[in-house]
Amino acid sequence: MQFQLTDELIENVEILVENNNDKELVKLLNEFHYADIAEILDELDLDDSIYVIKLLDSETTSDILTELDEDTREKVLKNLSAKEIAEEVEELDTDDAADIIAELPEERQEEVISKIEDEEHREEITELLKYQDDTAGGLMAKELVKVYETWTVAGCLRRIRGQAKEVTRVHSIYVVNKEEKLIGRLSLKDLIVAKNDQKIADIAKDNVDFVNVIDDVEDVAKVMAKYDLEAIPVVDDSQTLLGRITIDDIVDVLKEEAEKDYQLAAGITQDVDSDDSIIELTRARLPWLFLGLIGGVGAFVIMEGFQEAFNQYAVLFFFTPLIAAMAGNVGVQSSAIIVQGLANDDIKGSINRRLLKEMSLATLNGIILAAFLFLFVWIYIGEIDKAIAISTSLVAVIIIAGLIGTFVPLFLDKRGIDPAIATGPFITTSNDILGILLYFWIAKLILGI
Amino acid sequence: MQFQLTDELIENVEILVENNNDKELVKLLNEFHYADIAEILDELDLDDSIYVIKLLDSETTSDILTELDEDTREKVLKNLSAKEIAEEVEELDTDDAADIIAELPEERQEEVISKIEDEEHREEITELLKYQDDTAGGLMAKELVKVYETWTVAGCLRRIRGQAKEVTRVHSIYVVNKEEKLIGRLSLKDLIVAKNDQKIADIAKDNVDFVNVIDDVEDVAKVMAKYDLEAIPVVDDSQTLLGRITIDDIVDVLKEEAEKDYQLAAGITQDVDSDDSIIELTRARLPWLFLGLIGGVGAFVIMEGFQEAFNQYAVLFFFTPLIAAMAGNVGVQSSAIIVQGLANDDIKGSINRRLLKEMSLATLNGIILAAFLFLFVWIYIGEIDKAIAISTSLVAVIIIAGLIGTFVPLFLDKRGIDPAIATGPFITTSNDILGILLYFWIAKLILGI
Repeated sequence: MQFQLTDELIENVEILVENNNDKELVKLLNEFHYADIAEILDELDLDDSIYVIKLLDSETTSDILTELDEDTREKVLKNLSAKEIAEEVEELDTDDAADIIAELPEERQEEVISKIEDEEHREEITELLKYQDDTAGGLMAKELVKVYETWTVAGCLRRIRGQAKEVTRVHSIYVVNKEEKLIGRLSLKDLIVAKNDQKIADIAKDNVDFVNVIDDVEDVAKVMAKYDLEAIPVVDDSQTLLGRITIDDIVDVLKEEAEKDYQLAAGITQDVDSDDSIIELTRARLPWLFLGLIGGVGAFVIMEGFQEAFNQYAVLFFFTPLIAAMAGNVGVQSSAIIVQGLANDDIKGSINRRLLKEMSLATLNGIILAAFLFLFVWIYIGEIDKAIAISTSLVAVIIIAGLIGTFVPLFLDKRGIDPAIATGPFITTSNDILGILLYFWIAKLILGI
Repeated sequence: MQFQLTDELIENVEILVENNNDKELVKLLNEFHYADIAEILDELDLDDSIYVIKLLDSETTSDILTELDEDTREKVLKNLSAKEIAEEVEELDTDDAADIIAELPEERQEEVISKIEDEEHREEITELLKYQDDTAGGLMAKELVKVYETWTVAGCLRRIRGQAKEVTRVHSIYVVNKEEKLIGRLSLKDLIVAKNDQKIADIAKDNVDFVNVIDDVEDVAKVMAKYDLEAIPVVDDSQTLLGRITIDDIVDVLKEEAEKDYQLAAGITQDVDSDDSIIELTRARLPWLFLGLIGGVGAFVIMEGFQEAFNQYAVLFFFTPLIAAMAGNVGVQSSAIIVQGLANDDIKGSINRRLLKEMSLATLNGIILAAFLFLFVWIYIGEIDKAIAISTSLVAVIIIAGLIGTFVPLFLDKRGIDPAIATGPFITTSNDILGILLYFWIAKLILGI
């Protein structure tokens, strides 16, 4: 059953396009889900993609448009007239329609909007475009099923038949009072199992979850995941019902969040994927590498500074990659645990307690690792004073690295900065330098140089 | 509206428990969602938690149980009798019930199952326990609304009223033939807008998505996210309808996947969170740190091996942390992009094309970074031959690091091993060693030592 994007299939489509064999092409593509057709178009040349888009009916192509890669979509939209885009947008739910229009250059946005024939749709999209991308308003759709508390079940069912035709999936029926304020909810099931002459007010559940239109999408995702909600209504400050967010949009938010955090931890800024151009990938990766370079130059300067003091102890320099690696690894581990805890709202209690815990943890790990290093140095080099100096420094370096890895993301979070930035290269680089500095300083102290 | 877990609230609950003030306690807790009560119980002493669990009615406590931290739940279940657990389980949907029973020690599992009074529920749970955790069968629930193709809309609505009472949310109505094989689907909406005397076979949609009971949960998640499904039916090899998976379970799968990959990239094995004990955290973190230690010792041995050759070039040793850091960073970046691409099925085309692209990318990044390093060394140390040697090595190290970061996850994936293992400490450590080796080798060549 699973769709497979094969080279053969793409070739097949290309040949049909080349031969203008519209009938066969439509027949072939109609077998696939629009998300699959989008995957095919992402692989085709732009001209071929546009040929297919213009060939299929707008009910399908509008859905395909929402599923295309952003780059492909941008190129396709450039090749469609404002009127054509407006026709696609007419077929879409308001949230998807607004997302597509928002990607257009500003002057085109107005042109496309003015060409949308359905007045209500036009107004709703215009409203949605006002909200920030990363807020509940930016994610919500205007399509929902709304009933008034004063209606009866029978009357409600009758009117819902009208509203529901426009709503792809009815998750919840929202109950409002005559001022349009959200006061409860109902499921279709509740309605079906209720008696025809019951009042909506009597069967509605009044403990309805909702979010404010300016709430952050990450918070919306948290609420929906925590309470296992499949849709949540969106209201303004006066509790007026404005729209609703469905779980499929939240799944996308969660995936994007996870990818962003993962990339930040790996030292990649900007949302890139493996198929992006070399220039885009360089722009996302070079800044962090440059940070690493600066850190390496810092390490060089520190080591050079200790050169004379350690003239007789050249062997100590050979452990700097080890020290740097351990400081980096411990720092990344600690910061990752904290970043994830912050994302899940798991971080309770004071910063001091956290730091104390990380210190105990780092001490335990440090002592175990230092014991091995001590044995190695002692057996391999045969000088116990050096073995003591190196392994003691390692414990200190690991403790400090753990504390920095814990403190920095907590600090950033308190200041309202995304703590995910603190993982990866940032922590690694600062811990590298600090670790090496600490290492030589402690070794110097112990060896009495 | 948002629930806030405050110290005050927890104290309040503790005082009510201490004073055996059951009436006030029930009144207070009934205001909260079960997911919120679970958060409160996670913070209480075990005795207090059990007091609350025994106090509230099993309809609420069964839901609370599913939301507790795994550690807390294990402790609570230890303190409940088999009969008490069976009563909780009776209230739950089959998937949640099976999950809870699966966590019990084996001998208790049978005891609890034998105490479940509802025979159908007992049999369904026993069936679900047979499936692997990470398969569609391990995730699915038996609760679903099923209709036969031969029914009429009116008959269907009548019977659905019976079935739907047991199903929390009706996503789709699954249509089967008389051999119980899945042949289509319907939405409640379709049913409501249809005429009473229409046959189900005539209004059912026959392009129904489904997964096989042995499919991997990650694949199920991909299908549901791609096609924006809120529920998907599960069938066996003969297309017999066995159960259904809902999107809220998929949200949990996606979150767990993302956390696991993130932790692997940070060098943390096993699923731990910031509130786990120091022993658990050490067990998750120490193996990777040990790997780093071995890598550091390897770097030491390499540097020692080059000691004599570079007797007159001590300054070169001071750049090893820089070389190691760059090799590590580039490797992590490349592998992260590949791991993420593999997770999203974005990696198309041959390995060779990937490696070529990464090589171009690494060359570009390498040359830019090497230019800066060249200037620094030239100006700071004032010897152009060293500046050339160091910066040329850097370019080579970055290219090789990028290739290893690209190749290793692709290779692991081809061999059926989770490529996420290849990110983080694994790539960093191997690139550290290889980078340093390459650095001295190239420098030696260029400086003609």
